[in-house]
Amino acid sequence: MDDTTEPRSRAQRRADTERRLTHDVDLWVASSSADGAPYLVPLSFDWDGEALLLATPADSPTGRNLAANPTVRLGLGDTRDVCMIDGDVDILEIDALARDQGDRFAARAGFDPRALTTPYRWFRIVPRRIQAWREVDELPDRELMRGGRWLVEQMETR
Amino acid sequence: MDDTTEPRSRAQRRADTERRLTHDVDLWVASSSADGAPYLVPLSFDWDGEALLLATPADSPTGRNLAANPTVRLGLGDTRDVCMIDGDVDILEIDALARDQGDRFAARAGFDPRALTTPYRWFRIVPRRIQAWREVDELPDRELMRGGRWLVEQMETR
Repeated sequence: MDDTTEPRSRAQRRADTERRLTHDVDLWVASSSADGAPYLVPLSFDWDGEALLLATPADSPTGRNLAANPTVRLGLGDTRDVCMIDGDVDILEIDALARDQGDRFAARAGFDPRALTTPYRWFRIVPRRIQAWREVDELPDRELMRGGRWLVEQMETR
Repeated sequence: MDDTTEPRSRAQRRADTERRLTHDVDLWVASSSADGAPYLVPLSFDWDGEALLLATPADSPTGRNLAANPTVRLGLGDTRDVCMIDGDVDILEIDALARDQGDRFAARAGFDPRALTTPYRWFRIVPRRIQAWREVDELPDRELMRGGRWLVEQMETR
């Protein structure tokens, strides 16, 4: 815990969140089965500025859960520097995504789900709500997006 | 990705998992609401060798979810060095835990849920299943515990 820093502004947290969305490779994916059992697994992702893109086997627990219950909560970052993202999931068959988007995912994730024998699907997640906090002192102002809209302007690019 | 290392043995993974259970402070907690919405949040924990202990407000999303649906999936470690723990949850009122166990939790977590005005509860989780892996090459042999029983002996203490 770094007690020397002030809580970040919401604008700073948005910038930090967008940096992670742009540069991180993995996040935690929480889903629920048709009968309500929680599931959690780390997966690689891509971000195009509007939506996150995941790929996992259609027949994996996450693949089955999201087909039955297309809502997801994502944890990006570390337990003491988190971005929590709630979103709704669109499922695409593996050949239904534009090729350049698939190429981009493969370059970032380090694997190409289109090239595997196990049947994969794409899971496209548009964030509905985003929160970000580091320690308890950042719990106020942790909400950055609500109803799919950012609550703060993007910071000036320097 | 460290391509120079071999996949760990199950015994090594058990030792690494027990080290994290003993020394880490936070983990990711996935739960499901009564109507099946996934939830995920990082929380601090303690481990007594048999069960994990969490504390969160009774009226928080995780507190309400676990009261309605007392099953949990925990992610311990990083996305490229994970221990996944499935377990069933016993809920204890905040004054129902032995004092030394509460003291131990407070020392490790850095906060004492018994001293707060917000009503907290304890959530005691006995692992039913534990898996551990780093990269794709460790997906085989990732299961370390099934049905509440370790599948490998504890390594010799050196």
